[in-house]
Amino acid sequence: MALTLKRLLVGKAKKTAQAIHERLSKKTGLAVFASDALSSTAYASEEILLVLAAAYAAGQANAFNYVVPITMVIAIVLGIVAISYRQTIFAYPSRGGAYIVAKENLGTTPGLVAAAALLVDYVLTVSVSISAGVAAITSAAQGTSLSWIDNHKVFLCLILIAFIAVAHLRGVRESGALFAGPTYSFLISFLFMVGYGIVHYFFHPVTAQASPEHLKIAEGYGLQPISLFLLLGAFSNGCVALTGTEAISNGIPAFKQPESKNAATTLTWMAILLATMFVGTSVMAYLYKVQPHENETVISQFARIIFTGPMGWFYYVIQATTALILVLAANTSFADFPRLASLLARDRFVPRQFATRGDKLVFSNGIIILAIFAGVLVVSFGGDTSRLIPLYAVGVFLSFTLSQLGMVRHWLKAGRAGKKLKSEEATDSSAKLANSIILQEAAHWKKSIVVNGLGALATAVVLVVLVITKFIHGAWIVVVLIPLLVALFRAIHRHYVDVATQLTTEGFQKLRPITHEVIVPISGIHRGVLKALEYAKAIAPGHVTALYINLDEEATQKLRTKWSEWTEGVELIVIASPYRSLVGPLVRYVDRRISLSPDKMVTIVLPEFIPSKWWHHLLHNQTSLLLKGALLFKPNVVVTSVPYHLKH
Amino acid sequence: MALTLKRLLVGKAKKTAQAIHERLSKKTGLAVFASDALSSTAYASEEILLVLAAAYAAGQANAFNYVVPITMVIAIVLGIVAISYRQTIFAYPSRGGAYIVAKENLGTTPGLVAAAALLVDYVLTVSVSISAGVAAITSAAQGTSLSWIDNHKVFLCLILIAFIAVAHLRGVRESGALFAGPTYSFLISFLFMVGYGIVHYFFHPVTAQASPEHLKIAEGYGLQPISLFLLLGAFSNGCVALTGTEAISNGIPAFKQPESKNAATTLTWMAILLATMFVGTSVMAYLYKVQPHENETVISQFARIIFTGPMGWFYYVIQATTALILVLAANTSFADFPRLASLLARDRFVPRQFATRGDKLVFSNGIIILAIFAGVLVVSFGGDTSRLIPLYAVGVFLSFTLSQLGMVRHWLKAGRAGKKLKSEEATDSSAKLANSIILQEAAHWKKSIVVNGLGALATAVVLVVLVITKFIHGAWIVVVLIPLLVALFRAIHRHYVDVATQLTTEGFQKLRPITHEVIVPISGIHRGVLKALEYAKAIAPGHVTALYINLDEEATQKLRTKWSEWTEGVELIVIASPYRSLVGPLVRYVDRRISLSPDKMVTIVLPEFIPSKWWHHLLHNQTSLLLKGALLFKPNVVVTSVPYHLKH
Repeated sequence: MALTLKRLLVGKAKKTAQAIHERLSKKTGLAVFASDALSSTAYASEEILLVLAAAYAAGQANAFNYVVPITMVIAIVLGIVAISYRQTIFAYPSRGGAYIVAKENLGTTPGLVAAAALLVDYVLTVSVSISAGVAAITSAAQGTSLSWIDNHKVFLCLILIAFIAVAHLRGVRESGALFAGPTYSFLISFLFMVGYGIVHYFFHPVTAQASPEHLKIAEGYGLQPISLFLLLGAFSNGCVALTGTEAISNGIPAFKQPESKNAATTLTWMAILLATMFVGTSVMAYLYKVQPHENETVISQFARIIFTGPMGWFYYVIQATTALILVLAANTSFADFPRLASLLARDRFVPRQFATRGDKLVFSNGIIILAIFAGVLVVSFGGDTSRLIPLYAVGVFLSFTLSQLGMVRHWLKAGRAGKKLKSEEATDSSAKLANSIILQEAAHWKKSIVVNGLGALATAVVLVVLVITKFIHGAWIVVVLIPLLVALFRAIHRHYVDVATQLTTEGFQKLRPITHEVIVPISGIHRGVLKALEYAKAIAPGHVTALYINLDEEATQKLRTKWSEWTEGVELIVIASPYRSLVGPLVRYVDRRISLSPDKMVTIVLPEFIPSKWWHHLLHNQTSLLLKGALLFKPNVVVTSVPYHLKH
Repeated sequence: MALTLKRLLVGKAKKTAQAIHERLSKKTGLAVFASDALSSTAYASEEILLVLAAAYAAGQANAFNYVVPITMVIAIVLGIVAISYRQTIFAYPSRGGAYIVAKENLGTTPGLVAAAALLVDYVLTVSVSISAGVAAITSAAQGTSLSWIDNHKVFLCLILIAFIAVAHLRGVRESGALFAGPTYSFLISFLFMVGYGIVHYFFHPVTAQASPEHLKIAEGYGLQPISLFLLLGAFSNGCVALTGTEAISNGIPAFKQPESKNAATTLTWMAILLATMFVGTSVMAYLYKVQPHENETVISQFARIIFTGPMGWFYYVIQATTALILVLAANTSFADFPRLASLLARDRFVPRQFATRGDKLVFSNGIIILAIFAGVLVVSFGGDTSRLIPLYAVGVFLSFTLSQLGMVRHWLKAGRAGKKLKSEEATDSSAKLANSIILQEAAHWKKSIVVNGLGALATAVVLVVLVITKFIHGAWIVVVLIPLLVALFRAIHRHYVDVATQLTTEGFQKLRPITHEVIVPISGIHRGVLKALEYAKAIAPGHVTALYINLDEEATQKLRTKWSEWTEGVELIVIASPYRSLVGPLVRYVDRRISLSPDKMVTIVLPEFIPSKWWHHLLHNQTSLLLKGALLFKPNVVVTSVPYHLKH
């Protein structure tokens, strides 16, 4: 029945040979890998405003004006990160994920820190994106007869997460066909809204109506005046716009040839589009004086203002495409998390089950775990995007920093290798080719160090700001969690290495013959017992003993009389049990047999009848289970049940 | 660790031979067997008042006056039942329980109905007595600084139930030493209270102060005038006074010789004492105009009135002895329920585990189940005695009726046997002795039928009144439950009979030699696998096949190369698994082997390494568990794990 349910949910299994590989053009590549990064424009500006609202509520009417300069600074950081990652794309054309780059260049621990940060980040991407997507839907419902769905946000989130997880278990791939439509619809409608909105403002300079009673302030911020700390807090919140920037560098092999060049161009385009949309959103919020509202997103608010009259329908296009791209962004994590977990499993840092491909060739366990963790987060934080944000960016910027630092180290090595090479002479042609690659990298190692070094510095500074300003608002959770995860990875690794050492065949001689004997504990004589005795005689002719625990003198006498009738060649041993225990005397007898000849294997053959209905198990003593439990940890003891199947 | 906890709770195990049998005098017999019946005087009068309160609250000021006549009628029924049971005691001197009497004389189904009724009754005795005992304690706390314990009644009940259950698991016996003190303290202080109270009234005719806002009315009764139905309802409630009357007839063998005579005398005394105390309580309630109160029992109320000044301390004696005897009454069920369950288990109507004696020679499973059911009832009904009462008496009177009807049938048979005997002549002396017993019974069969018939009639009428007046107040639960239990008993019986038929050795030949082969599924070559192969060769020399599922061509090639190094004489079979499943291909292979020679046994030897820490299990694929599950239901297949113990 469980199997039927699985088939219904997951569909038919795929053969291993059915794995297909699709190559992406720049256009579809942008759609597939940029949805995560672009979608963050749906909430990044609003997260800045939420912090500034603390000063606005404290009486500083111009507090919201800071949104534009803060956005500009974040856009500059975005530029630096993008340029820095372009270099990673060329240096690691096969797979440039933070885990690999940090592990190869900085060592295992930094690699594991990056991996832990990324795993946490993927979980948060799902929770944050789905919460924001649901917010786009519930905002559109504000003021209509559907406004009650605002009370069921968490439920909606869980439904969406389950839906995406099942889609991935069914083998949905990150195909261009799936992503192109929603991503480009979002891009075009969003850019249109920004352009239309700015033009519209100069003809109709209306502003949003303030509703102080619904003003939303970032959780953990009381009323307070503008201060450097407050502005840094707003900046930190806005940095979520950068999440997802690294996605393209993880997916280079999926691009058409020349892969690295195409990927790099796509990354540049993504950064430009993201910066434009992000700055555009903040400018719109500034122009229309939009304030964060408890039950409606900022984008929904100004979209309502500018799309009126005959353009009214376009408001719904904006909300729909926003919700859709946010769901796609969560979708991306469902591809990335299982992939990274499988890499870690292959390196033996997480349970090996994460490296097993399911029926549809996907890493099912990773998908399921991600869905569970994301679901727990959504429930814990009430499906509220802004409460999740303080946890979000720490992992992202930690992996950025480690990845960039790894690149700096990479270029240092490349420079040293180049210097060494110049002083030697290549002898054969293959060595010449290898040398030429090294020399090519070495040629620009100084310039490259500066670029990646700047990237590392910028992201490290942001990381420090993030941790300081968001620590008490939730970042501490991630700060505590990442070292714990690394310690767990290490413990798991130690165990696997230890098991491999213990199981190694080195120093092992050829298969040796072993001596063995069989003990059959019996509760009387019935067909099940006779079948077990037949089996015992077959596996150890001449070495079978039947063991009976004497609980009742009368029954024992009966058994003795009956014994010779049936059981030639099997010795019957009767043990007294003054305390009516079955397991204790039996275990003691087995111990005695083992101590007599420590090299011998002892097999306990248990006659066990298998009822045809599950509830019948309740009607029979579960002595064999107890026996198995008691004997499980004894070396040289094997417990075998010989089943006797009851018919009804 | 579980064992340590068990030893701490239950104490050291007892040897089977340690079972001791104590014989009771009439005095101690009264203490041991009458506590249940006598204790019901603590709440029976109050339960009558609770129903009459519906009329009082409706404005009929004299409603409570009916309590005395109703009590008189119940006392008459008690007399009839006691006289009727005296006959049972002489006719069934070994064990006169309703289950036995009904089964022997009326057939299995009436016997099972009586058994089901008794089991339900025992559970309710525990819940009702403990709730009433706790009410005695919380009543005493009224108006003191301890009055807050009234809010923790349920918790107190559960603590007491757990305490009694553990005492029984530790092997507490129904010893005279344990019972004599509390029972006689209760008897003496209670009778003193009744006598003192009546005398006191003629010198100080005070009455209780009515507190209409705290007046308690039986649940399910609205305000209504006096009617026949209401009076019958009050009568039904009062009939709980008869519960426990049958206890002595279940325990005849515990009395000193002559057992039956001593038991019968004790029963007479018990009935007289019970009637006196019950009528006395009702008279006191009438004289002092006590009304049922939400937070205080009726007895506590008039005890407070009469014991004032220098006698004030005696109020606490009354409350303490009442609480104690109620706890003892619950204690009685903890002896009776497991005993009846073990009888049913020996007759194969309930799971045989109920017939197993635990470490202290008690039927542990019965004790545990009773504690759980009673605990559930207490929680469901909020520890409120009066809410449990409508469920209580139905089971009791059902078993009374069946037992008396069984006796009627018994006398009919005795009469017929006597008539037949008179027409014959006894030949030898032993037959003469048997005949004399039959003739002795037959001599008074007509008179006996009248007595037991009157008992059956009286209890049957009460039963009908009970079911009608209490049906919607909770009696329906018992009316539905008893047939369900009987159906369950029958289904269990059918299963056991069926298993016995299937397992019979009849028609079975001597042990036959069987042919068998071994299949060892392997995931590679490591020490655990080599150990499994050694074992496999030992149990089936020359018939061992190793089975490898090919998931990865490269790993398979490696294995093939390594194979011959280690494993002479073992054939390696590699199976393709296009869908990456391990279990499916293996099961199909086994099926093929079996279909080739259906008589052969196939043993699957699984190499299994046993981690030293429990959490390590999470780090390894649980394929062997899945395999065991998949192969469990195949005939002629035996699954054996050969453990390889990891050290750390």
